[in-house]
Amino acid sequence: MQKGIITLTSRPSIICGASVVGKKEMDGPLARCFDKYDLTDTFDMPTWEQSESEMQRIAFNTAMEKGGFKIHDIDAIFAGDLINQCISSGYGLANFDTQFFGLFGACSTMAESLVLGSMLVDSGKYSRVAAVTSSHNCSAERQFRFPLEYGGQRTPTAQWTVTGSAAVIIGEHSDLPYIAEVLPGRVCDKGINDSANMGAAMAPAAIDTLKRYFDESGKKPDDFSAIFTGDLGYEGSSILVDFLRSDGYDISRVHHDCGLMIYDRERQDVHAGGSGCGCCATVFAGHILPQLKEKKLKDILFIATGAMMNTASIQQGLTIPGIAHLARITVSEGDDGQNS
Amino acid sequence: MQKGIITLTSRPSIICGASVVGKKEMDGPLARCFDKYDLTDTFDMPTWEQSESEMQRIAFNTAMEKGGFKIHDIDAIFAGDLINQCISSGYGLANFDTQFFGLFGACSTMAESLVLGSMLVDSGKYSRVAAVTSSHNCSAERQFRFPLEYGGQRTPTAQWTVTGSAAVIIGEHSDLPYIAEVLPGRVCDKGINDSANMGAAMAPAAIDTLKRYFDESGKKPDDFSAIFTGDLGYEGSSILVDFLRSDGYDISRVHHDCGLMIYDRERQDVHAGGSGCGCCATVFAGHILPQLKEKKLKDILFIATGAMMNTASIQQGLTIPGIAHLARITVSEGDDGQNS
Repeated sequence: MQKGIITLTSRPSIICGASVVGKKEMDGPLARCFDKYDLTDTFDMPTWEQSESEMQRIAFNTAMEKGGFKIHDIDAIFAGDLINQCISSGYGLANFDTQFFGLFGACSTMAESLVLGSMLVDSGKYSRVAAVTSSHNCSAERQFRFPLEYGGQRTPTAQWTVTGSAAVIIGEHSDLPYIAEVLPGRVCDKGINDSANMGAAMAPAAIDTLKRYFDESGKKPDDFSAIFTGDLGYEGSSILVDFLRSDGYDISRVHHDCGLMIYDRERQDVHAGGSGCGCCATVFAGHILPQLKEKKLKDILFIATGAMMNTASIQQGLTIPGIAHLARITVSEGDDGQNS
Repeated sequence: MQKGIITLTSRPSIICGASVVGKKEMDGPLARCFDKYDLTDTFDMPTWEQSESEMQRIAFNTAMEKGGFKIHDIDAIFAGDLINQCISSGYGLANFDTQFFGLFGACSTMAESLVLGSMLVDSGKYSRVAAVTSSHNCSAERQFRFPLEYGGQRTPTAQWTVTGSAAVIIGEHSDLPYIAEVLPGRVCDKGINDSANMGAAMAPAAIDTLKRYFDESGKKPDDFSAIFTGDLGYEGSSILVDFLRSDGYDISRVHHDCGLMIYDRERQDVHAGGSGCGCCATVFAGHILPQLKEKKLKDILFIATGAMMNTASIQQGLTIPGIAHLARITVSEGDDGQNS
């Protein structure tokens, strides 16, 4: 019998998190949530790729500071990003003296790293690990679309890559909140080939993971304080809610998408919303985690989605595979679910 | 106390493996070891990137066939590659109905996936997982260097990217060999910035991981039947052996580098040897694993190294971070090390 939901019986803690963002994010509705920012988006580095690496370094250092940790307190880092060969992580975290696992989950990276990190803490392999990721609007635009100087127009379904990085530290069961269950994603390709509509490309993966979660757990959407998706944006969120409703699960009352939370769509000209590995990572570390710590949220599903194409595969006319990793995070110590 | 070597007390099994290669590999000294090949290197696909994805699909299917497994017997796949956004894995494994973890470890991917997969099997989170990776000379050349048609000259320290993919299936303790210990790598950047000398860039990571392993375990190089590095090639291997000797560990009698095994350097014009994620992956699945199954090798260290730069970071003048993940694989059921 193939594994589905994986219950973490020890309930590893999310000890602390930190977020670092750029100018547009500081102009958005969640500005107060973030730990550090640079309104020039450069973080004093000479290239956008190095700026992105620097954000990861700052985010990880800030998370360690907030938790009162030194590098020797962290057994391993799980990190990745969207830049070719994940160099934001490779360079940003190169000088830290701890075990390192490079991940590629596209915009699902924060969830993938939470899932892997928490499974390894739950099993006692590690005592304390970090999950780190980032994206930068300027490095992403020139890699995936056009150099900024070109001034290319964007389609209405396009999303705006977040300039941001976050680091989250997971440890053995101690302070709330706890990771109670994880459900890793499967690669889903439903034939979307419009790289300016990532929400539509990633939504099938979110539907697949959430439907599997509800089917197997027997829980209902309203059993949760909230269900946060990563960066489906306006397009992808509508698809998710509609398709899950036709499968018998109405998530509309509890669903929030980090891509729709981080910017003011009307005022900030971001079209279908925010995206990038840094989107749900900074919203999680800056906005969701503090609400869990204060028990304003009691039991949530965090599902980050990723689109696994590259520029060559799009030029070759291929469709876009997606993936969605899920973590159930609760303030409850025991098995009683959301009623803590 | 930060984690070092992680002992897998249940000793997960490496149940089976499969390898798929191209023409140059079939012209090399290990030709007989590989399961499948295509002398056109295309695998009947219209682009090199799709050929590489197809190799992963074939390798994974072949490994499942050899083990008598269907996809529902495999709890999760750990996969990655060197193509931007790891599309060889994303597309090649998109239609398999199981949990998927995308990794980026550059040429260390086979070791990274063995390390993560075996830790999760040892902890009971999964019963059976697959580790899959690939590289393709033609997709790598045009992404990292020049389109083949350009006919660029190569420097003497350059290595030849292997056209090959391998899949290995790890399961609960049953048939030999067993993964007894793992030691995940740290990101090491010692200032090498010559992207035509990857061996030199990756050697410091291999030195770091092996030195930590010997220091902590108290074992000596000659305690092992063999120590296999991934694809340091001629340059990197010399650096590794020399530096470890100056640290008091002489590995010269037991060291083999997969990059020096897969081709005949004199006859096949590969300069410093083979490289790419597919290099140590196909040598492991095709050559090393069968020798462990037959107890011709009894206790080995398998250390694959990766270089974590991209073309932009090299153009920007940055140095090359490396990483090396280690797995100790033995035919011994218990704690007696190599004396099975």
